[in-house]
Amino acid sequence: MEIGIDSFASAMISSNTNNAITSSQAMSELLERIEKADESGLHLFGIGEHHRKEFLDSAPAVILAAAASRTKQIKLTSAVTVLSAADPVRVFQNFATLDLISKGRAEMVVGRGSFTESFPLFGLDFHDYDALFSEKLELLLTIRKQEVVNWSGKFRPALKNQSIYPRPFQSQIPIWVGVGGTPESFIRAGSLGLPLMVAVIGGDTHRFRPLIDLYKEAGKRAGHPPEVLKVGLHSLGYIANTSQETSTGSVESRAALFRIHSKYISGST
Amino acid sequence: MEIGIDSFASAMISSNTNNAITSSQAMSELLERIEKADESGLHLFGIGEHHRKEFLDSAPAVILAAAASRTKQIKLTSAVTVLSAADPVRVFQNFATLDLISKGRAEMVVGRGSFTESFPLFGLDFHDYDALFSEKLELLLTIRKQEVVNWSGKFRPALKNQSIYPRPFQSQIPIWVGVGGTPESFIRAGSLGLPLMVAVIGGDTHRFRPLIDLYKEAGKRAGHPPEVLKVGLHSLGYIANTSQETSTGSVESRAALFRIHSKYISGST
Repeated sequence: MEIGIDSFASAMISSNTNNAITSSQAMSELLERIEKADESGLHLFGIGEHHRKEFLDSAPAVILAAAASRTKQIKLTSAVTVLSAADPVRVFQNFATLDLISKGRAEMVVGRGSFTESFPLFGLDFHDYDALFSEKLELLLTIRKQEVVNWSGKFRPALKNQSIYPRPFQSQIPIWVGVGGTPESFIRAGSLGLPLMVAVIGGDTHRFRPLIDLYKEAGKRAGHPPEVLKVGLHSLGYIANTSQETSTGSVESRAALFRIHSKYISGST
Repeated sequence: MEIGIDSFASAMISSNTNNAITSSQAMSELLERIEKADESGLHLFGIGEHHRKEFLDSAPAVILAAAASRTKQIKLTSAVTVLSAADPVRVFQNFATLDLISKGRAEMVVGRGSFTESFPLFGLDFHDYDALFSEKLELLLTIRKQEVVNWSGKFRPALKNQSIYPRPFQSQIPIWVGVGGTPESFIRAGSLGLPLMVAVIGGDTHRFRPLIDLYKEAGKRAGHPPEVLKVGLHSLGYIANTSQETSTGSVESRAALFRIHSKYISGST
């Protein structure tokens, strides 16, 4: 089992502060927290992707690279890369570069995104919500598998004998599929034999059990061995000096700054 | 005057080595060199952008972010960002994130690119070589200037009341125009009042004098004050322990690894 922390890189800005200084300070503190997470033996740290004023994480690979320089063991992942709105070529290049910098500690969780802001920003149509993700995931997996790519699709120019560089440190950067509550998403991840990351930011985790069964069945049907069908789960967490402080909400300011969004519990069960 | 070093992040791979290990080692050494450049008081370090096997720099902002964590004073720049093949929204996001991480040390040099590999990789047409750059530079400057953007063009979906985040630490990230030998490029940079980076990788520097005059004249005509019309120049350099070693080519392996590509000499003269 692995345990980690995700952050959306809160900007912590307000109307009566200098936003540039506050954002830069928030970024410093985030990098400090990733360093502490590494020192304390947590397995991974994830940075989300958003394109809105309250979060600083529109370029997660850039933040993770800064964290890679300051850490030794911890895996560094996106949580999630909004793949529908991105070019899989650039996504692969960013994370392969991160993988070289961190000597094999890069991972990706890719998803359709639970916020909608990337659609108008990158000129996408909500009618293509699932088709965009499906096609781009296929291309990303192709680029991961082979150095020379021949590919064509609907949402990106075709690739004819194109090679994508740099190649990463790991033979294959782990790619998890981030899912919400859509059954088809669980089945897709299982059929592809990809590890599953259940993004539960609110609500009870036990209600996802039937969907995880769907994932496992789809994986088995497609012939994938049980050990590749890994499941990760998010849940909200609070950090303070004592259990009592977390339960009463009277957390110290230091603890409150952690703004923990969730933690992974990933394993093969 | 400022002096710096550029690198194309040579992969240093060969047919009889493990490329993953060699590339990762090359990346480590590059980051070490940037750290040394910072300690020794150089003003800036630039990372190129290429999409080919022999260079590791397809994602310069990711490398620069790793360097930002390990340095204190040195400015960190792309050299150059191949803007024609990129989405200015993502470019701005990457460098604004770098600017927050480095507390205001990010710069960009943007250009059309002297290699052609990005055209088939990103599905572009050589007929649009200049139009792509011109349109994307205009959008990048708009995003830099204002938080809420209304824009439409030919090569990217329109932006209607869209805001691009995060905002950088500096009120305006410096954007230099990287030019080769095309007179129109010098005139464009001058007309826009942007600092000029002359990318001379081979040949004599003095032959650029008439083109720099064109730049200054265009800038003056457009009403820009002389102090914004800064000029940067590249030239090849060799590093060794003694002058003699550099002139005879008998450089030590340590020095040879530097693979210095060029140095900036930028100033207002």
